[in-house]
Amino acid sequence: MSLTMYSASVPVFQRMLGNMLNWLDKAEAHAVARKFDSGNYVGLRLAPDMLPFGRQIQIASDGAKGCVARLAGIDVPKWDDTEATLAELRARVARTLDYVQGFDAGQIDGSEGREILLPTRQGDPLRFTGEAYLKHFVLPNFYFHATTTYALLRHAGVELGKRDYLGAA
Amino acid sequence: MSLTMYSASVPVFQRMLGNMLNWLDKAEAHAVARKFDSGNYVGLRLAPDMLPFGRQIQIASDGAKGCVARLAGIDVPKWDDTEATLAELRARVARTLDYVQGFDAGQIDGSEGREILLPTRQGDPLRFTGEAYLKHFVLPNFYFHATTTYALLRHAGVELGKRDYLGAA
Repeated sequence: MSLTMYSASVPVFQRMLGNMLNWLDKAEAHAVARKFDSGNYVGLRLAPDMLPFGRQIQIASDGAKGCVARLAGIDVPKWDDTEATLAELRARVARTLDYVQGFDAGQIDGSEGREILLPTRQGDPLRFTGEAYLKHFVLPNFYFHATTTYALLRHAGVELGKRDYLGAA
Repeated sequence: MSLTMYSASVPVFQRMLGNMLNWLDKAEAHAVARKFDSGNYVGLRLAPDMLPFGRQIQIASDGAKGCVARLAGIDVPKWDDTEATLAELRARVARTLDYVQGFDAGQIDGSEGREILLPTRQGDPLRFTGEAYLKHFVLPNFYFHATTTYALLRHAGVELGKRDYLGAA
Protein backbone atom coordinates (compact mmCIF):
# COMPACT_ATOMS: atom_id res chain seq x y z
CA MET A 1 0.00 0.00 0.00
CA SER A 2 1.27 3.46 -0.87
CA LEU A 3 0.39 6.66 0.85
CA THR A 4 -2.28 8.45 -1.19
CA MET A 5 -4.36 11.58 -0.96
CA TYR A 6 -7.27 9.46 0.23
CA SER A 7 -5.29 7.46 2.79
CA ALA A 8 -3.72 10.66 4.14
CA SER A 9 -7.08 12.40 4.60
CA VAL A 10 -10.24 10.35 5.14
CA PRO A 11 -8.84 7.80 7.64
CA VAL A 12 -7.02 10.61 9.47
CA PHE A 13 -10.26 12.54 9.93
CA GLN A 14 -12.13 9.37 10.85
CA ARG A 15 -9.68 8.62 13.63
CA MET A 16 -9.59 12.09 15.14
CA LEU A 17 -13.33 12.81 14.79
CA GLY A 18 -13.98 9.50 16.53
CA ASN A 19 -11.59 10.56 19.28
CA MET A 20 -13.44 13.85 19.63
CA LEU A 21 -16.73 12.02 20.14
CA ASN A 22 -15.04 10.19 23.00
CA TRP A 23 -13.77 13.43 24.54
CA LEU A 24 -17.24 14.96 24.36
CA ASP A 25 -18.76 11.90 26.03
CA LYS A 26 -16.24 12.25 28.85
CA ALA A 27 -16.98 15.96 29.05
CA GLU A 28 -20.71 15.23 29.42
CA ALA A 29 -20.05 12.64 32.11
CA HIS A 30 -17.78 15.10 33.94
CA ALA A 31 -20.53 17.73 33.91
CA VAL A 32 -23.08 15.23 35.21
CA ALA A 33 -20.73 14.06 37.98
CA ARG A 34 -19.90 17.63 39.00
CA LYS A 35 -23.49 18.78 38.56
CA PHE A 36 -22.95 21.63 36.14
CA ASP A 37 -24.64 22.40 32.83
CA SER A 38 -22.50 20.94 30.04
CA GLY A 39 -23.50 23.97 27.99
CA ASN A 40 -20.95 25.82 30.10
CA TYR A 41 -18.18 24.31 28.00
CA VAL A 42 -19.44 25.95 24.83
CA GLY A 43 -18.13 29.43 25.59
CA LEU A 44 -14.78 28.50 27.18
CA ARG A 45 -11.69 30.18 25.70
CA LEU A 46 -7.97 29.61 26.25
CA ALA A 47 -7.36 33.35 25.92
CA PRO A 48 -9.90 36.17 25.72
CA ASP A 49 -9.00 36.81 22.07
CA MET A 50 -9.16 33.17 21.00
CA LEU A 51 -12.31 31.53 19.65
CA PRO A 52 -14.52 29.65 22.11
CA PHE A 53 -14.90 25.90 22.45
CA GLY A 54 -17.96 25.65 20.20
CA ARG A 55 -16.21 27.45 17.35
CA GLN A 56 -13.14 25.22 17.72
CA ILE A 57 -15.35 22.21 17.02
CA GLN A 58 -17.23 23.88 14.19
CA ILE A 59 -13.99 24.91 12.49
CA ALA A 60 -12.48 21.43 12.88
CA SER A 61 -15.67 20.08 11.31
CA ASP A 62 -15.50 22.56 8.44
CA GLY A 63 -11.85 21.70 7.88
CA ALA A 64 -12.53 18.01 7.41
CA LYS A 65 -15.70 18.52 5.36
CA GLY A 66 -14.12 21.15 3.12
CA CYS A 67 -11.00 19.07 2.55
CA VAL A 68 -12.69 15.95 1.27
CA ALA A 69 -15.18 17.88 -0.86
CA ARG A 70 -12.53 20.12 -2.45
CA LEU A 71 -10.11 17.27 -3.11
CA ALA A 72 -12.97 15.40 -4.76
CA GLY A 73 -13.88 18.48 -6.78
CA ILE A 74 -17.41 18.85 -5.49
CA ASP A 75 -19.15 21.79 -3.84
CA VAL A 76 -18.58 22.09 -0.12
CA PRO A 77 -21.91 21.81 1.69
CA LYS A 78 -22.70 24.77 3.92
CA TRP A 79 -23.64 23.85 7.48
CA ASP A 80 -24.93 26.60 9.72
CA ASP A 81 -23.02 27.10 12.95
CA THR A 82 -26.02 26.95 15.23
CA GLU A 83 -24.82 24.47 17.86
CA ALA A 84 -25.36 25.84 21.36
CA THR A 85 -25.14 22.74 23.54
CA LEU A 86 -22.61 19.99 24.03
CA ALA A 87 -25.06 17.47 22.57
CA GLU A 88 -25.46 19.59 19.45
CA LEU A 89 -21.70 19.91 19.09
CA ARG A 90 -21.38 16.15 19.45
CA ALA A 91 -23.97 15.73 16.69
CA ARG A 92 -21.94 18.11 14.49
CA VAL A 93 -18.86 15.93 14.95
CA ALA A 94 -20.87 12.77 14.21
CA ARG A 95 -22.34 14.38 11.09
CA THR A 96 -18.85 15.32 9.95
CA LEU A 97 -17.65 11.77 10.52
CA ASP A 98 -20.56 10.44 8.44
CA TYR A 99 -19.81 12.94 5.70
CA VAL A 100 -16.10 12.16 5.35
CA GLN A 101 -16.81 8.42 5.46
CA GLY A 102 -19.05 8.86 2.43
CA PHE A 103 -16.03 9.47 0.18
CA ASP A 104 -14.07 6.69 -1.43
CA ALA A 105 -10.51 6.52 -2.67
CA GLY A 106 -11.55 6.88 -6.30
CA GLN A 107 -12.93 10.36 -5.61
CA ILE A 108 -9.85 11.70 -3.82
CA ASP A 109 -6.80 9.84 -5.07
CA GLY A 110 -4.80 11.67 -7.70
CA SER A 111 -5.82 15.09 -6.40
CA GLU A 112 -2.22 16.14 -5.59
CA GLY A 113 -2.13 18.63 -8.45
CA ARG A 114 -5.76 19.76 -8.38
CA GLU A 115 -6.11 23.53 -8.02
CA ILE A 116 -7.82 24.39 -4.75
CA LEU A 117 -9.30 27.85 -4.26
CA LEU A 118 -10.07 28.71 -0.69
CA PRO A 119 -12.41 31.66 -0.19
CA THR A 120 -11.23 34.28 2.31
CA ARG A 121 -13.09 37.05 4.04
CA GLN A 122 -10.59 39.55 2.58
CA GLY A 123 -11.58 38.84 -1.02
CA ASP A 124 -8.93 37.07 -3.08
CA PRO A 125 -9.04 33.33 -2.51
CA LEU A 126 -5.99 31.40 -1.34
CA ARG A 127 -4.67 29.10 -4.07
CA PHE A 128 -3.10 25.73 -3.36
CA THR A 129 -2.33 22.50 -5.10
CA GLY A 130 -4.32 19.66 -3.57
CA GLU A 131 -1.19 18.30 -1.95
CA ALA A 132 -0.08 21.60 -0.39
CA TYR A 133 -3.66 22.25 0.75
CA LEU A 134 -3.83 18.93 2.58
CA LYS A 135 -0.33 18.99 4.09
CA HIS A 136 0.25 22.62 4.91
CA PHE A 137 -3.23 23.98 5.47
CA VAL A 138 -5.89 21.40 6.28
CA LEU A 139 -4.02 19.04 8.57
CA PRO A 140 -2.19 21.62 10.72
CA ASN A 141 -5.42 23.60 10.98
CA PHE A 142 -7.57 20.57 11.78
CA TYR A 143 -5.17 19.43 14.50
CA PHE A 144 -4.95 22.98 15.81
CA HIS A 145 -8.68 23.04 16.49
CA ALA A 146 -8.75 19.47 17.76
CA THR A 147 -5.89 20.20 20.17
CA THR A 148 -7.49 23.43 21.34
CA THR A 149 -10.75 21.55 21.96
CA TYR A 150 -8.82 18.96 23.96
CA ALA A 151 -6.87 21.63 25.87
CA LEU A 152 -10.09 23.43 26.85
CA LEU A 153 -11.54 20.20 28.20
CA ARG A 154 -8.33 19.47 30.14
CA HIS A 155 -8.42 22.99 31.49
CA ALA A 156 -12.02 22.38 32.57
CA GLY A 157 -10.96 19.33 34.55
CA VAL A 158 -12.16 16.57 32.22
CA GLU A 159 -9.98 13.50 32.74
CA LEU A 160 -8.37 13.08 29.36
CA GLY A 161 -4.85 11.95 28.50
CA LYS A 162 -2.67 11.64 25.44
CA ARG A 163 -4.25 8.26 24.68
CA ASP A 164 -7.63 9.93 24.35
CA TYR A 165 -6.11 12.52 22.06
CA LEU A 166 -4.45 9.98 19.78
CA GLY A 167 -7.10 7.25 19.95
CA ALA A 168 -6.48 3.55 19.53
CA ALA A 169 -2.93 2.91 18.32
CA MET B 1 4.07 14.62 -8.21
CA SER B 2 2.51 12.04 -5.95
CA LEU B 3 2.18 12.22 -2.22
CA THR B 4 4.97 10.13 -0.67
CA MET B 5 6.23 9.29 2.78
CA TYR B 6 9.01 11.85 2.29
CA SER B 7 6.75 14.60 0.97
CA ALA B 8 4.27 14.01 3.79
CA SER B 9 6.93 14.26 6.51
CA VAL B 10 10.12 16.27 5.91
CA PRO B 11 8.52 19.35 4.24
CA VAL B 12 5.74 19.29 6.85
CA PHE B 13 8.26 19.42 9.69
CA GLN B 14 10.33 22.04 7.88
CA ARG B 15 7.33 24.31 7.57
CA MET B 16 6.14 24.01 11.14
CA LEU B 17 9.59 24.10 12.77
CA GLY B 18 10.29 27.25 10.78
CA ASN B 19 7.03 28.69 12.05
CA MET B 20 8.03 27.82 15.61
CA LEU B 21 11.29 29.75 15.24
CA ASN B 22 9.20 32.75 14.25
CA TRP B 23 6.90 32.35 17.29
CA LEU B 24 9.91 32.15 19.58
CA ASP B 25 11.41 35.30 18.06
CA LYS B 26 8.13 37.10 18.69
CA ALA B 27 8.06 35.71 22.23
CA GLU B 28 11.56 37.06 22.89
CA ALA B 29 10.61 40.47 21.48
CA HIS B 30 7.47 40.49 23.64
CA ALA B 31 9.54 39.77 26.75
CA VAL B 32 12.02 42.54 25.89
CA ALA B 33 9.20 45.03 25.25
CA ARG B 34 7.43 44.12 28.48
CA LYS B 35 10.71 43.90 30.39
CA PHE B 36 10.39 40.37 31.74
CA ASP B 37 12.84 37.49 31.63
CA SER B 38 11.96 35.33 28.61
CA GLY B 39 12.96 32.34 30.74
CA ASN B 40 9.57 32.84 32.40
CA TYR B 41 7.91 31.19 29.42
CA VAL B 42 9.75 27.92 29.97
CA GLY B 43 7.64 26.72 32.90
CA LEU B 44 4.20 27.89 31.70
CA ARG B 45 1.46 25.25 31.64
CA LEU B 46 -2.09 25.27 30.21
CA ALA B 47 -3.26 23.15 33.14
CA PRO B 48 -1.37 22.16 36.29
CA ASP B 49 -1.21 18.54 35.14
CA MET B 50 -0.05 19.31 31.61
CA LEU B 51 3.61 19.50 30.62
CA PRO B 52 5.29 22.91 30.63
CA PHE B 53 6.25 25.01 27.63
CA GLY B 54 9.83 23.75 27.46
CA ARG B 55 8.73 20.14 27.37
CA GLN B 56 6.18 20.88 24.65
CA ILE B 57 9.01 22.07 22.42
CA GLN B 58 11.33 19.21 23.33
CA ILE B 59 8.62 16.65 22.57
CA ALA B 60 7.75 18.30 19.25
CA SER B 61 11.46 18.16 18.43
CA ASP B 62 11.71 14.50 19.41
CA GLY B 63 8.63 13.71 17.32
CA ALA B 64 10.11 15.14 14.14
CA LYS B 65 13.60 13.73 14.74
CA GLY B 66 12.32 10.27 15.66
CA CYS B 67 9.97 10.14 12.69
CA VAL B 68 12.52 10.80 9.98
CA ALA B 69 15.12 8.53 11.59
CA ARG B 70 12.71 5.62 12.10
CA LEU B 71 11.18 5.89 8.63
CA ALA B 72 14.73 5.88 7.21
CA GLY B 73 15.60 2.87 9.37
CA ILE B 74 18.43 4.48 11.28
CA ASP B 75 19.00 4.90 15.01
CA VAL B 76 17.28 7.87 16.57
CA PRO B 77 19.89 10.21 18.03
CA LYS B 78 19.41 10.95 21.73
CA TRP B 79 19.36 14.63 22.60
CA ASP B 80 19.35 15.55 26.28
CA ASP B 81 16.49 17.76 27.40
CA THR B 82 18.64 20.38 29.09
CA GLU B 83 17.18 23.57 27.60
CA ALA B 84 16.36 26.09 30.34
CA THR B 85 16.06 29.36 28.44
CA LEU B 86 14.07 30.57 25.46
CA ALA B 87 17.29 30.93 23.46
CA GLU B 88 18.22 27.32 24.19
CA LEU B 89 14.74 26.14 23.17
CA ARG B 90 15.06 28.12 19.96
CA ALA B 91 18.40 26.41 19.31
CA ARG B 92 16.71 23.04 19.88
CA VAL B 93 14.11 23.84 17.23
CA ALA B 94 16.82 25.04 14.81
CA ARG B 95 18.84 21.88 15.43
CA THR B 96 15.75 19.78 14.72
CA LEU B 97 15.13 21.67 11.51
CA ASP B 98 18.73 21.04 10.41
CA TYR B 99 18.39 17.38 11.28
CA VAL B 100 15.18 16.72 9.34
CA GLN B 101 16.51 18.67 6.35
CA GLY B 102 19.45 16.27 6.22
CA PHE B 103 17.20 13.47 4.96
CA ASP B 104 16.38 12.99 1.32
CA ALA B 105 13.47 11.30 -0.40
CA GLY B 106 15.47 8.19 -1.21
CA GLN B 107 15.89 7.44 2.49
CA ILE B 108 12.23 7.79 3.42
CA ASP B 109 10.10 6.99 0.39
CA GLY B 110 8.69 3.49 0.34
CA SER B 111 8.59 3.22 4.13
CA GLU B 112 4.79 2.76 4.26
CA GLY B 113 5.10 -0.88 5.29
CA ARG B 114 8.26 -0.63 7.39
CA GLU B 115 7.77 -1.99 10.91
CA ILE B 116 8.21 0.76 13.46
CA LEU B 117 8.78 -0.11 17.10
CA LEU B 118 8.26 2.72 19.50
CA PRO B 119 9.73 2.24 22.97
CA THR B 120 7.36 2.96 25.85
CA ARG B 121 8.06 3.53 29.51
CA GLN B 122 5.70 0.65 30.36
CA GLY B 123 7.85 -1.98 28.61
CA ASP B 124 6.34 -3.43 25.46
CA PRO B 125 6.97 -1.19 22.47
CA LEU B 126 4.13 0.14 20.32
CA ARG B 127 4.16 -1.41 16.84
CA PHE B 128 3.12 0.45 13.73
CA THR B 129 3.55 0.28 10.00
CA GLY B 130 5.48 3.30 8.75
CA GLU B 131 2.31 4.73 7.25
CA ALA B 132 0.18 4.37 10.39
CA TYR B 133 3.05 5.73 12.50
CA LEU B 134 3.28 8.88 10.39
CA LYS B 135 -0.45 9.49 9.96
CA HIS B 136 -1.95 8.43 13.26
CA PHE B 137 0.88 8.95 15.72
CA VAL B 138 3.61 11.34 14.61
CA LEU B 139 1.61 14.06 12.89
CA PRO B 140 -1.24 14.39 15.42
CA ASN B 141 1.32 14.33 18.23
CA PHE B 142 3.66 16.82 16.57
CA TYR B 143 0.80 19.24 15.92
CA PHE B 144 -0.47 18.70 19.45
CA HIS B 145 2.79 19.97 20.91
CA ALA B 146 3.16 22.73 18.32
CA THR B 147 -0.39 23.94 19.04
CA THR B 148 0.13 23.77 22.79
CA THR B 149 3.34 25.80 22.40
CA TYR B 150 1.42 28.34 20.35
CA ALA B 151 -1.49 28.41 22.82
CA LEU B 152 0.87 29.04 25.75
CA LEU B 153 2.43 31.99 23.92
CA ARG B 154 -1.02 33.38 23.07
CA HIS B 155 -2.02 32.95 26.69
CA ALA B 156 1.14 34.86 27.67
CA GLY B 157 0.12 37.77 25.48
CA VAL B 158 2.47 37.25 22.53
CA GLU B 159 0.88 38.70 19.41
CA LEU B 160 0.46 35.67 17.23
CA GLY B 161 -2.32 34.75 14.84
CA LYS B 162 -3.35 31.83 12.71
CA ARG B 163 -1.03 33.04 9.95
CA ASP B 164 1.92 32.62 12.29
CA TYR B 165 0.70 29.17 13.19
CA LEU B 166 0.32 28.03 9.59
CA GLY B 167 3.26 29.95 8.09
CA ALA B 168 3.50 31.18 4.52
CA ALA B 169 0.68 29.77 2.41
